[in-house]
Formats: sequence, structure tokens, C-alpha cells
Amino acid sequence: MKLTPEAAGTFAIAPTPFHDDGKIDDVSIDRLTDFYAEVGCEGVTVLGILGEAPKLDAAEAEAVATRFIKRAKSMQTIVGVSAPGFAAMRRLARLSMDAGAAGVMIAPPPSLRTDEQITSYFRQATEAIGDDVPWVLQDYPLTLSVVMTPKVIRQIVMDSASCVMLKHEDWPGLEKITTLRGFQKDGSLRPLSILCGNGGLFLDFEMERGADGAMTGYCFPDMLVDVVKLSKAGQRDLAHNLFDAHLPLIRYEHQQGVGLSVRKYVLKKRGLLSSSAQRKPGASLTDTTREEVDYLLSRLARVDKRADLEPRSKAAE
Amino acid sequence: MKLTPEAAGTFAIAPTPFHDDGKIDDVSIDRLTDFYAEVGCEGVTVLGILGEAPKLDAAEAEAVATRFIKRAKSMQTIVGVSAPGFAAMRRLARLSMDAGAAGVMIAPPPSLRTDEQITSYFRQATEAIGDDVPWVLQDYPLTLSVVMTPKVIRQIVMDSASCVMLKHEDWPGLEKITTLRGFQKDGSLRPLSILCGNGGLFLDFEMERGADGAMTGYCFPDMLVDVVKLSKAGQRDLAHNLFDAHLPLIRYEHQQGVGLSVRKYVLKKRGLLSSSAQRKPGASLTDTTREEVDYLLSRLARVDKRADLEPRSKAAE
Amino acid sequence: MKLTPEAAGTFAIAPTPFHDDGKIDDVSIDRLTDFYAEVGCEGVTVLGILGEAPKLDAAEAEAVATRFIKRAKSMQTIVGVSAPGFAAMRRLARLSMDAGAAGVMIAPPPSLRTDEQITSYFRQATEAIGDDVPWVLQDYPLTLSVVMTPKVIRQIVMDSASCVMLKHEDWPGLEKITTLRGFQKDGSLRPLSILCGNGGLFLDFEMERGADGAMTGYCFPDMLVDVVKLSKAGQRDLAHNLFDAHLPLIRYEHQQGVGLSVRKYVLKKRGLLSSSAQRKPGASLTDTTREEVDYLLSRLARVDKRADLEPRSKAAE
Amino acid sequence: MKLTPEAAGTFAIAPTPFHDDGKIDDVSIDRLTDFYAEVGCEGVTVLGILGEAPKLDAAEAEAVATRFIKRAKSMQTIVGVSAPGFAAMRRLARLSMDAGAAGVMIAPPPSLRTDEQITSYFRQATEAIGDDVPWVLQDYPLTLSVVMTPKVIRQIVMDSASCVMLKHEDWPGLEKITTLRGFQKDGSLRPLSILCGNGGLFLDFEMERGADGAMTGYCFPDMLVDVVKLSKAGQRDLAHNLFDAHLPLIRYEHQQGVGLSVRKYVLKKRGLLSSSAQRKPGASLTDTTREEVDYLLSRLARVDKRADLEPRSKAAE
Repeated sequence: MKLTPEAAGTFAIAPTPFHDDGKIDDVSIDRLTDFYAEVGCEGVTVLGILGEAPKLDAAEAEAVATRFIKRAKSMQTIVGVSAPGFAAMRRLARLSMDAGAAGVMIAPPPSLRTDEQITSYFRQATEAIGDDVPWVLQDYPLTLSVVMTPKVIRQIVMDSASCVMLKHEDWPGLEKITTLRGFQKDGSLRPLSILCGNGGLFLDFEMERGADGAMTGYCFPDMLVDVVKLSKAGQRDLAHNLFDAHLPLIRYEHQQGVGLSVRKYVLKKRGLLSSSAQRKPGASLTDTTREEVDYLLSRLARVDKRADLEPRSKAAE
Repeated sequence: MKLTPEAAGTFAIAPTPFHDDGKIDDVSIDRLTDFYAEVGCEGVTVLGILGEAPKLDAAEAEAVATRFIKRAKSMQTIVGVSAPGFAAMRRLARLSMDAGAAGVMIAPPPSLRTDEQITSYFRQATEAIGDDVPWVLQDYPLTLSVVMTPKVIRQIVMDSASCVMLKHEDWPGLEKITTLRGFQKDGSLRPLSILCGNGGLFLDFEMERGADGAMTGYCFPDMLVDVVKLSKAGQRDLAHNLFDAHLPLIRYEHQQGVGLSVRKYVLKKRGLLSSSAQRKPGASLTDTTREEVDYLLSRLARVDKRADLEPRSKAAE
Repeated sequence: MKLTPEAAGTFAIAPTPFHDDGKIDDVSIDRLTDFYAEVGCEGVTVLGILGEAPKLDAAEAEAVATRFIKRAKSMQTIVGVSAPGFAAMRRLARLSMDAGAAGVMIAPPPSLRTDEQITSYFRQATEAIGDDVPWVLQDYPLTLSVVMTPKVIRQIVMDSASCVMLKHEDWPGLEKITTLRGFQKDGSLRPLSILCGNGGLFLDFEMERGADGAMTGYCFPDMLVDVVKLSKAGQRDLAHNLFDAHLPLIRYEHQQGVGLSVRKYVLKKRGLLSSSAQRKPGASLTDTTREEVDYLLSRLARVDKRADLEPRSKAAE
Repeated sequence: MKLTPEAAGTFAIAPTPFHDDGKIDDVSIDRLTDFYAEVGCEGVTVLGILGEAPKLDAAEAEAVATRFIKRAKSMQTIVGVSAPGFAAMRRLARLSMDAGAAGVMIAPPPSLRTDEQITSYFRQATEAIGDDVPWVLQDYPLTLSVVMTPKVIRQIVMDSASCVMLKHEDWPGLEKITTLRGFQKDGSLRPLSILCGNGGLFLDFEMERGADGAMTGYCFPDMLVDVVKLSKAGQRDLAHNLFDAHLPLIRYEHQQGVGLSVRKYVLKKRGLLSSSAQRKPGASLTDTTREEVDYLLSRLARVDKRADLEPRSKAAE
């Protein structure tokens, strides 16, 4: 079941679970995957930038991808295959597809600057992985420092029939969605799924601008599922009410570096991860940060019961 | 009344008001300044990065600074004097102080990389403006791409007795405040006012970490004043309640480029600016963006009456 | 006598001469200008990036530009007017043209990334200075971090009839000249003067690729004049022989930061500058560096008598 | 025979030889390695930045490293192990040492900015590879955009007893060598081998400043060997005479992107590579570029017979 431009809904970005000693935690992979399916995610994306993918060696990355893919069953799995070179990218892409992935995701290397460099890179990447592999274009200038205009995105999509989805996390990016959807209305851009990342910080309005759903790693993917559904059902106020209740925590999780620590901390509190450990180099949470997150959760729980988590003792952390 | 390390409260970052034809709008300068004073701001900061300062020529910058300073009366005025070279920086700094400014603000030029380059730059800047001019260190890596560790900030402050305030807008930055306050506890850093920028996105927790107040341009400075006061009074829940109600709009205004347009649009709706015009190159608002901001204001108005603004007709914009 | 696309030959990039105390040295401005004329330069470019332009305040910049323009007489003067905003750019451009400048030079601000951002910026810049002012496009990615493809340069030139010259200092850039000249052969680009910068490091081959001359600040502009003439006369071997003799020093002067110190040191040895002082922040030469430059000069003097300079005693520096 | 701080002489940076179809060319690996030994290189460095290392997948990288190591025999082999994460770095480092490498080389990831980030990274890297693996610190800001002051380098070296060599390619960097050697004189820095890269562009003076030798990929490593020896023997003029004869070509090869193409073209002309092919994305040479290189070789051959290469017909390329 390969990824198509009709893909929509919520794709959870999965963290890579580690044990405290840095080994990969297969049990948590399974538990996370099952949870994503239960709460209604249409897919799961693994080995993304925030999935600590660069901290795995090649064999580990292949093992992690395969485990998620096998467990995902009816959900679609997308594997991040960004790499400094095409040989490694191709290898992971082919192997993932053979294992049953729905598609792969590619981010531009930070050195790209001009429109031509960018479009040329993705033509070569498509050739490298093979044009039978559906792929997701990741547009994330804040971290990658590569800026793609809507016209450049259109060019990339029109150059590669196998590019079926945009992971939209430009910031600010609301007008970009509007412009891309306008290209489709005027016939210059073919169908393309647009799922939104950036921690979900603008998901409320991104849906209204024409996005098809969410692809991000916020620690309450179940909320993402709800907001996407409410928004698609035209329940604007209800969508914003739920979103706004989560916004203080979304905002808090959106801090670079700290964000992943917070995410893993909450996922552990939710019983999904056995450990909140990151591989080096990685941030760890201070007591004050933990207290702040707990406070945000307690405030959130007044509106959304899913945030009513048993307070974890500091000793247990 | 020069700026001291005891400065606290809310300093509003003022936009530079223009007429539709790009001329400077003196009447709006006066109106804005009076408003800041009425709602309880302790100060006003002019010619900041988002004040479109680089779009003014030298004579205009001097005129704008002087007008704000003269009107501010009991409020303290801080003038942004960041410049590509020390000659221009010195000229604007001396002229502003002569006109009655409380101090000046200096951001590092984007080319600085190493700790030594950064500390050396600020020693030279202090020498350039004269050590009788109190100054504010602006720490804003997201836009300036200069990263200063807490130790580097300590070094800068200890090198220059006239550095009396930190405009804190690192992101993430909560631990930075904690670390700097820790330096003061261990005696390695002298007293320093810390006011927080970054659009106010983390003001709720920044206050709890030990900040002295806010210095940012959010379109409801009156809310900043309230949150700072509630937080200082130990009213944690009330501070967060008010802050969280504004957070969807704070978040929306925090989009680079778009943010200033939104800010000027709301300030015009509030009757403070005659025009929301920016000088080129500048963003303008689409109809959809305006509708989104109006929707956010209407939601906010349910909690905070100050956001209950007469809807402006599209024709009038 | 305004600048046209037929401009050719050598335009010396003039340093801004300072006295040891940092004041502007008018006598050296005059002496330098006369020297450029005597050795056969067609023009002089002032207030460039390496002319320490950002270290001058607005009034000083205007005074320096005017002094060079008035003294240049039959030579054409180009004034660097790059500025963070259009108001300052316009002011210096109009004032320079009124004083008799042949044209102005504009570099892109470092924040520009996409092709559209770049072309849009230069359309706005043309509008800002007025379309009656001939201007030079500076293409200098190494320092400015803005990368312009040949197609983008073509777009800029075709958008602005008043853009008459390219200061070419991309690196590597030989193919860029070839591509631009190819655009002219196929009729898609109108006539454009191409003068080469980058310290002259590739002048030998740039001329053979179709450049019209040199615009750089190497401390022997008289050599640049000769190489340009020899190359245009088809004297390939003679051009390379002279160029190669200077290459060790060209290479040495091409070190960022150190380069300007070396340049001012040699120009002082040549009797053209009264002082080698730079305004802060600026590099100064160590004894070892001076000895290395003197050694390079002594080796060069065996081939080019112009380098046979009276050794300056260390005490006199 | 592990790498020690006493290492000196010339370490050739080896390109990775490919066949025209992109497969790795083992025969050329052997031929190159033998050549380096014959002309007097003390070592060979493989899988460096310009060795197209990122274009290999993990298995290929291990195979290439092993082949070079086995063939190098009496020469020391250094393997570039820079990687986005420590797991991959460790794996290649351990495997290379087991195969007989003398040491490994580590470059900082481009995201590092502050002094603390840099020193912390290398402490973690040392821990990751194991403190029994001698390693080379690569200081290459032009490409990596990480700027390390002499004090930071000293800190890194003093933190890790297994850091035995600096690959010096800061630019400008002559004063850096002098400063580091000064640290050793004042007792604050322990012994450290300094080999110079940057294409050899400043090798003449770097040796005089106290470098121990060259580590770069210039297409005439035999010249590097000679210049290093002449300089060490105090034959200043002879060293510069030979160096200056090569400088026009060194300079030409020093163009980013184009450089590797030129290098492989000349190495093929010298009979050392079977093909000048690069893996994608890679530059290819135009006819004009080839003609320019041939012209430079013909001029060089008048002084250095090693450059008198049979002209290759265009068809054969």
C-alpha cells in the first residue's frame, strides 16, 4: 500500500526509543506503534530529524525502520532517508520499501542555496532511490536553512512523479499552503498531499488553509487526530478550543533541543516509552523544566482528560 | 534618569509609524507613547530590529528617536543604536543621550562567531559610545545568528560597567535565565536587569525563572504589564490564565516577516497607528490573514475585553 | 559622463585612508586618486566592502565619496551605496551622482536566499535610487553568502535598464563569465560590462573568458592595468608571466581580514598612504607578517621593478 | 604503528577513485597508494571531505578504508570518520584501527557555534571512538563554518590525550600556527603535530611558521614533499621557487567544486587514476577548463619536469 497524493489525516513522527544505556528499545517501538494505531493515526513517520536518526549507524537505522514497518500493519509507514550522499539514501530507501514501507522522506542538505541547486538535487535524489519509490518532500527552513519558494516546490513536484507529499514546516508558512493550493486550482501543479509539521504550532490555521493533515511529533498525537477531524468537519470553534488548550504545551515542546526531551518525558509519563533517554549529544531535563511541564499538563487536564497523568516522582525519572 | 540594573517592568518595543506614502508619522509616535505610559509601561524601546530602524536614513533615525524621547516624559526611553560600524553607533548614541534617552541597545553583528570575537566586539562598542552611556545587550540568536553562552554574557557584563540590562530573546532560553541568576548567587556576576523579548512567547515562565519584566512589541503591551505584575505578585495561575488567553495571538504574531504586519494591523485597529504601512521591503496582509487575526481577536475578547475591537471594514484597510 | 555597458579596463578599488587617530586622511585620498589616473586606471571605486565603508557615519561617507569624485577628474568614479535600507542607499546615491559620480555599486544584503528574493530586492533598489542612476551589481558570495546563478543575474539585468556592469567575484566563477557571455550570444542578455574582483586571484583566466577588465584593490593596480591590456592584445604568455610573478603576493593579500592590512601596508610603502591605520574593528600586522610581505616584494622585484620598495624600518610603521 | 604528536612530513589526501559507472576502482586505489609511497609521502589520508566520503554507503566506506590501509604498508593511514552521529563514527573508527590504520580524523559538524559547544563535541567524540584511538582535529572553517580560536584548539587538545595532530586549514591561518606554537613554548599546550591543508595555498609560509608538514590533496604530492623538505632544510628561496612555480595551478585547483574535477583530471593524466569520474552530485570539466589546466601544466613543465604530461586527446577523456 504505497503512499499516494490522496494521503491525509495524522502521521505521527515517532521518536526513536532508547534504553537508559543507549541501546534501541524494541518493546517501546511496538508499544508506540500500537498506540498510534489505536488513537486513529493514518501513518507513522520514522527516522526523522527529531527521531535522532543521525545518531544510529546504518545497521541500526535499518533495524529500527523494519521494526516500525512490521508492527504498523494497517498504518502506512514513512521512513526518513535523508543522508549526506545518494548511496546511503538509496540503500535505506530500497530496503525500507522491500520491508513494506509506504514511502520515504527526503530533506534537502543544508548547503543548497539557489533554486537550481535545490531542484537539481531532488531530481538526482529521485533518480538515486528509483522512480518507483513514493517520497515526501520535507520543507523545514528553520532547521535546514534551505528556503524553497512555492514555485520551487512546484518545480520539484512536477519534475518527479513519485513525489506525492509535502511535509510543510516552513515558518511562517500559511500563505505557502494557500499559494500551492492556488497552483492546483490554476492547473499548474498536480495533486499533492500536504501534511504539517513544525510541532503543530500552526495546525489550527494550516488545516483551514487547505492542509490534508498533520505530520509531527507532539506528545499528544491523539489531539492532532481530533483537531484534524474537527477542522475537516468544519467545526472551527471546537477545533480551536481543543487546539488552544494544548497550545501552551505545544509551544513549550517547540523549543529546539529541549523539545525532544519534553516529548520523551511526556511519552514516558503516558506509559509509551520505557525511558526518556536520548543518545549523545542530547539535552536532559532539569527539575525546573519537569515541574513546568507537569504544571502545563495539570492545567491542560482541566480541559483534556488525556493529560491527567499520574505525577511521576522525581526519583523515578 | 539613566537606566540602571534595577530597571524592571514592561518596556514596549515601539514600531516606527509611517504614513501610507512612507513618510514618518509623528502624530502616531505621540499617540503610541502616551498609550504606553497610560497602560503602565516603565519604558519604551525605539529603533529596534522590528522597528524598521535600518530602513531610516541617519537623519530620520535621529528625528524618530528624539520625538519618542521628548514625548516619553516620565517613562525611560532606550534607543537601538546597532550599526554596521562604530562611527554611526556612537553618533546616534551620543545624540540620543543628549536628547534625554535612558540608555541604548546594541545587538551583535551577524558575522561574529567565537566567544572572543563576541566579547571583543562589545568591549570596542562600549569604548565607541563612551562608558557613561548605559546600554542593553540584545541576545537574539534566531534572527542575528550569534550564539552567546551564559558565560560569554557574564564576561561582557563584567567587562563593561555600563552594560546594565540584558534583552533576553534566546530560544530556548529558560535555562539561560536560571544560569545567569545562579551566577549572581555565586557572586560571579554583578546585578543585571533581564527583560524578555521574543514576542513574549515564553513570558509566563521567563518571569518565574527570574526575569525582571518584558521588552517586546506584542500588540497588547497592557497584557504584558498585567502578566509581569501578576507573576511578581506570585499569582501564578492568574498570570498563566491571562497569558494563555493571549497565546494564540502571540504565537500568530511571532511569525517572522508577517509578525510586524499583524502587529501594525492590530495597533491600527486599537486606534494607535494611523496607518499599518511598512517601508519597503515589507510584508502586507492578505484578506485571509486579516480574517484570521480578527477571528483570534474575537476569541480573545471573550476573556480580555481589550481585544473587543470594532471590526474594521476591509475597504478601510 | 555616466557609466555605460561599454565600460572596460581597470577600476581600482580604493581603500579609505585614515590617519593614525582614525580621522579621514584627505591628502592621501588625493594622492591615491592621482596615482590611479597616472598608471592608467579607467576608474576608481570607493566605499566598497573593503573600503571600510560601514565604519564611516553618513556624513563621513558623503565627504569621502565627494572628495574622490572631485579629484578623479577624467576617471570615472563608482560609489558603493550598499546599505541596510533603501532610504540611506538612495540618499548616498543621489548625492554622489549630483557630485559627479559615474555610477553606484550595490551588493545584496546577506539575508537574501531564493532567486525571487534576490531579483525582487534589486528591482526595489533600482526604484529606490531612481532609474537614471547607472549601477553595478556586486556578485560576491564568499563574503555576502548570497548565491546568484547566471540566470538570476540575467533576470536582474533585464529587469533594470540602469544596471550596466557586473562586479564579478564569485568563486569559482570562470564558467559564470562564459555562461553570461553565452547568454549575450543567444540574444537573451543585453550588453553588460563585466569587471573582475576577488583580489585579482583569477584575473588571468577571467580576461580570457570574456571579462572587460579588473575592479579590485590589489596593491599594484598598475599590474592590473598591464595584465588587462596584454590579455586584450592577445599576448597570453606575457599576460600570464606578469600575473604569475605577482600571484604569491595576490594570494597573500587575499586573506580575509589580513588582506586589507597588507594592502594598506604596501600602499604606504609605495608612498601613497600616509598611514596604514584601519578603524576598529581592524586587523594589524605582526612583525612576522610584515617580514613575509617584504620577502614577497623582494622576490617580485626581481621581475617587476615597481615592487622594489625601500624597506621600511619597523620603528616607522 | 599508531599516529603520534611527532608525525611530520607529507600526508597525501587521497581522492576516492571511481570507475565511469560510479563503482569503486580498487586498482586505482592501489596505484595511487604505491605512488604516494614512492614519492616519499609519510602517510595517506582517506575518506576526507574531498574524498567524496559522504557519497559512499557504510559498507563501501569500510571497504575503501581497508583497501588503502592494507596497501599503504609502511606509510601511515588516517581515516576520516566524521559522521552526523557518534554510532557511525565509532563503528568506522574501530574497524579502521583493527585493519591497521594509524589514526582517524574528525571534523566538527557545521551546527556548532560557541566555544563550549565545540569543546564539548570533541570530548564526546573522543569518548565515542575510545581513548585508545589517536585522532586528528580538522580545522576547516571555510567549508565547515565552524570557527575555532587557538584557545579552543588548545582546550580540545588538552581535554583529549588521544588528539595528536591538527589538520590546519583555517584561512587566514598563519598567525594561528604562530599562536599555537607560542602556547607550546609557554607550556600551556602539549606536543601536537600540525599538518597543513587548504589545497597547499599557503604551504610556503605555513612551514616557516612552524608547521610539521602538509596534508592536502594537490595533484602533485611530490611537490609537497619537496617543499616540506626544502623548508625544513632552511632552503627558503629554493622552497619558494618550487612552490611559486606550482602556485598558478594550486590556485586553480583551489576552486570549490571545480577543484576536485581538476585534481582527478591531472591524476588521470599522470596515469594514477583510470577515470576522473565523480559520483553525483559532482562537477565535470568543460573543454575550456581542460584547456586552461593543460596550459597551466605546460607552463609549469618549464620549471618542473613532472608536469610535462602527454597531452590527452579530448576524445579519450
